[in-house]
Amino acid sequence: MAKEPRPIDELTIWDDAKAMLKKARREGVETVHDRLDQQTPHCKFCELGTTCRNCTMGPCRVSEKRPRGVCGADADVIVARNFGRFVTGGAAGHSDHGRDLIEVLEAIVEGEAPDYKITDEGKLFRLAGEVGIETEGRELMAVAEDLMECFFADFGSRKKSVSLLSRVPEVRKEKWAKLGMTPRGVDREIAEMMHRTHMGCDNDAPNTLIHAARTALADGWGGSMIGTELSDVIFGTPTPKMSTANLAVIKEDKVNLLVHGHNPVVSEMILAAAREPEMVARAKELGATGINVAGLCCTGNELLMRQGIPMAGNHLMTELAIITGAVEAVVVDYQCIMPSLVQISGCYHTKFIDTANKARFTGAIHFDFQPRTAMKQAREIVSIAIEAFAERDAGRVEIPGEPIEIMTGFSNEAVIEALGGTLDPLVKAIADGDIRGAVGIVGCNNPKIKHDSLNVGLTKELIKKDILVIVTGCVTTAAGKAGLLVPEAIEMAGPGLKKICGALGIPPVLHYGSCVDNSRIIQLCAALANELGVDISDLPVGASSPEWYSEKAAAIGLYAVASGIYTHLGHPPNILGSETVTNLAVSGLEDLVGASFFIEPDAVKTAEMFDERIKAKRKGLGLSE
Amino acid sequence: MAKEPRPIDELTIWDDAKAMLKKARREGVETVHDRLDQQTPHCKFCELGTTCRNCTMGPCRVSEKRPRGVCGADADVIVARNFGRFVTGGAAGHSDHGRDLIEVLEAIVEGEAPDYKITDEGKLFRLAGEVGIETEGRELMAVAEDLMECFFADFGSRKKSVSLLSRVPEVRKEKWAKLGMTPRGVDREIAEMMHRTHMGCDNDAPNTLIHAARTALADGWGGSMIGTELSDVIFGTPTPKMSTANLAVIKEDKVNLLVHGHNPVVSEMILAAAREPEMVARAKELGATGINVAGLCCTGNELLMRQGIPMAGNHLMTELAIITGAVEAVVVDYQCIMPSLVQISGCYHTKFIDTANKARFTGAIHFDFQPRTAMKQAREIVSIAIEAFAERDAGRVEIPGEPIEIMTGFSNEAVIEALGGTLDPLVKAIADGDIRGAVGIVGCNNPKIKHDSLNVGLTKELIKKDILVIVTGCVTTAAGKAGLLVPEAIEMAGPGLKKICGALGIPPVLHYGSCVDNSRIIQLCAALANELGVDISDLPVGASSPEWYSEKAAAIGLYAVASGIYTHLGHPPNILGSETVTNLAVSGLEDLVGASFFIEPDAVKTAEMFDERIKAKRKGLGLSE
Repeated sequence: MAKEPRPIDELTIWDDAKAMLKKARREGVETVHDRLDQQTPHCKFCELGTTCRNCTMGPCRVSEKRPRGVCGADADVIVARNFGRFVTGGAAGHSDHGRDLIEVLEAIVEGEAPDYKITDEGKLFRLAGEVGIETEGRELMAVAEDLMECFFADFGSRKKSVSLLSRVPEVRKEKWAKLGMTPRGVDREIAEMMHRTHMGCDNDAPNTLIHAARTALADGWGGSMIGTELSDVIFGTPTPKMSTANLAVIKEDKVNLLVHGHNPVVSEMILAAAREPEMVARAKELGATGINVAGLCCTGNELLMRQGIPMAGNHLMTELAIITGAVEAVVVDYQCIMPSLVQISGCYHTKFIDTANKARFTGAIHFDFQPRTAMKQAREIVSIAIEAFAERDAGRVEIPGEPIEIMTGFSNEAVIEALGGTLDPLVKAIADGDIRGAVGIVGCNNPKIKHDSLNVGLTKELIKKDILVIVTGCVTTAAGKAGLLVPEAIEMAGPGLKKICGALGIPPVLHYGSCVDNSRIIQLCAALANELGVDISDLPVGASSPEWYSEKAAAIGLYAVASGIYTHLGHPPNILGSETVTNLAVSGLEDLVGASFFIEPDAVKTAEMFDERIKAKRKGLGLSE
Repeated sequence: MAKEPRPIDELTIWDDAKAMLKKARREGVETVHDRLDQQTPHCKFCELGTTCRNCTMGPCRVSEKRPRGVCGADADVIVARNFGRFVTGGAAGHSDHGRDLIEVLEAIVEGEAPDYKITDEGKLFRLAGEVGIETEGRELMAVAEDLMECFFADFGSRKKSVSLLSRVPEVRKEKWAKLGMTPRGVDREIAEMMHRTHMGCDNDAPNTLIHAARTALADGWGGSMIGTELSDVIFGTPTPKMSTANLAVIKEDKVNLLVHGHNPVVSEMILAAAREPEMVARAKELGATGINVAGLCCTGNELLMRQGIPMAGNHLMTELAIITGAVEAVVVDYQCIMPSLVQISGCYHTKFIDTANKARFTGAIHFDFQPRTAMKQAREIVSIAIEAFAERDAGRVEIPGEPIEIMTGFSNEAVIEALGGTLDPLVKAIADGDIRGAVGIVGCNNPKIKHDSLNVGLTKELIKKDILVIVTGCVTTAAGKAGLLVPEAIEMAGPGLKKICGALGIPPVLHYGSCVDNSRIIQLCAALANELGVDISDLPVGASSPEWYSEKAAAIGLYAVASGIYTHLGHPPNILGSETVTNLAVSGLEDLVGASFFIEPDAVKTAEMFDERIKAKRKGLGLSE
């Protein structure tokens, strides 16, 4: 393109990233930043959300000059429909992932998945109890079967509400029922959203948005939560452990295999296969000192939380990891895998291997990964990575910097155990004002925002104010690389957090998992609200997705808001073309569900907004500010 | 707008429409044609399908100059994703409609729907038998309950295939299984399509299109078919009867209530209430001679097929019907209801009443229509229409022309009965070449195409060639107004059709119902294929949607093609930006599923294409051309 590329220093806050961006430019490898330059400026109508392609009387684009599409839909209707479908794409992604876990549980129950097992039996029994399944004196597999049936049914059309709403405060559930926002079945809400947004169906923006919220809730308290909980049941509930992060976790002397995507069903098997002695021996035959499985994105988070594998990077690092020239294979399942990775892999010796029939990549090596044959397939995949080591061009290898230490593994179970078995110490710390509140910082990177600047900036600002931060997804690596995920980070925190976290030996920023694991955060909020006998919206908590890019982030944001959690976004979704929709998002929802979105690109101002909110909520609870 | 409006004669072939378009211009009422003028030219990227809004790294638009979106997706991936979601919108619409019928059946079984009943008990038992439910010696309600459970489960995650695939030839099912195209659960395929089209999931256009076909098949053999079959069970299986069509079915001396949308659950009750003596008496008190319930769009087709109510018009007539100034109320359920109808109703005394929580219209009178309270609510709605009669401005009333006679009610059951109880006479007529083949002409209107010109033009061309035409949806009114839906229309047909239809006393163009009722057509094709021991793709049949506009039409077209039926579209979907996707649609699918799409805007050429295809298929079956 004729346009001058942006200076690398403006693209990212990280040295490892800068080094690789320089290498990319040197080697003529195109990255996401180059493509953003090419795509800028974006179409104004699409950005405002005022284009409609939902029928062939159009496509239409509405504006003051032509205020209605061919059918008569105005900007409000068009924006609401587009946003509804956007959220639905996210809810469907998370939830279909959740369904895949149920199918693995089914295969375990049926004895068809020899390589998987129920690892956390206690959690399975607890979960079963929570959804009303009889557990007393029953066999594990009988309970597992009932739980599997219950969760499958959560995707169906026969329930009045998804089963894990058992965790939600009654007062919140009453609000949802009154608004027609109670999620009935995960797939049902998804299908209904697609129906409503067909031409000539839902032509009332607020009504469409109510259903978008319902669909998001079906994700948060349904599909995502099932995904998290069954992953714990099958692969073990995370416990605190140490690991490392950044590109330097890639090892020059090892076979480097990066797992990328979201679902541990594949990556857990890859890791297990890579640890087999025969595999390691073959790697050594080829001159490597071993096999290094490192994580990207959320399947990385899953393995980090449970197995402590190192994290090579988050969303905007995925291309750059390959550019080190030291990656033998990228093994992907689904979601957030930039299709450009296939091209970039092709610029090196890297094998790009996809594993899901529902997420194939033109040009990839394809495996139809199945529970029944998981280890066998995982071994084949790891073998491909090992053999690729021989093809590595040492002259093109450059691995920048040194790995940074991080602490991970904070499931709610682990937190409660650390607190001595109950939430009481946490409640007391909040009541005393040592922990003034908590904010979950979650989501992605977006090349429109200087990489991780806001993820890190906001985290630092909040802990200074004695606001505990919980991170998931791509914010994990950001916080980790900034040194925020170690107990020593209390030095960057306010006095209260320093005291509490110091006493517990934990960081002031807790890694809570992958993006489906945001369900852990809303579960914690619900538990706190129940403990205090209040609604979730009464708590001094917030959520933020500073650098989000994905439809899933929109779904997460909306289920957080609909659950009563004040939620920050670093930039708006494509809704600004409708005043009705925008106003509803940033204030109107407050009246309906007791929370709303706010949009703010500045870390300091965002932290101040959270501070104000937390003060108000603390006051509401009769606590000091 | 500054642009000169197009001459009315270019907009439509119908005198009733022209009269109303003139009145609209006279009265300053904006119509769909005006808005199309405003929206022309359309955005080229959106038209080509090469814009992507599936994440906020974009929006992107790809072209030769910038061939990849920010994530790296190329035109193939973007077009395939967009088309996948487009088809899914249609499949979700039909199928959610089907689910609503299951819910009514559930309410009947539970004794919660006093105003509905099982009207066709024989059909219920037959259906139950087809899906493997024991019927021998069992009570009606017990079988109904099992059928209800079976159909609900067709929307779930537990089946390997939807239950009515029992109707599909084995050889076709094997093809689908091999391709990964077997529809498992309706909602599941919808959710999976939304998942696949999230950033970083399915990045292989053919793979995405395979799933689009699977989703469409879940519609055709799942959601739509359940919608049709349960509507027959609950409201009666249609039998041949006479009615009338065009705007002149609106009566100056009566309370005119138009039903619009798709689901007979509402409109059947409206009709029943309007026929109650108290209602008629009140209408007479206000000076009307009675209450006239007339149909628009597909809920009109549903009532036409079963109750013989007159049809006021198809898609492009819906605005014009109100412009007569003689419509007291438009009562809508969902789908294809132009939001402009609210504004146009506001220009007259017309009450616009919506009835579905999932399809609300800003500015409408809203009823949350429920099976439990259906008749009570229907009476309230009809009362609103009656009272509006007093507000009618006689000076603004203009009802053009005279109604045209039509014959309707051709369910497969009715056809088989007319044939003496078996398909044999039809098979013989085909074998003898009296009926050379059959084409289903279905779908919509689109203001880009001269209203009904292609719907009528193609129908006339085909029957001349002794090709039987089956119509549904908005093509019904088109064919009806052209005089093609009466037995006398055999005069416009070739000698073979004239002989056979003349002997049976039926038109050469058979009205098969609403757009969900396209499931009747594929059922007939399957039955014929099974009778002959061949695949559906071996039959001398075709499908066409000449003037389509809706996502549902895309779903219908795709399930027809995936079922093996050569399918014509009068204009392409927004896929031309990808050569891969376009080539797959218009030829590549032929190798995979034995049929493909063809795009042709000319009626004569289209008929010739069908003629060639039918010749080839007849030859393949060893029949004369």
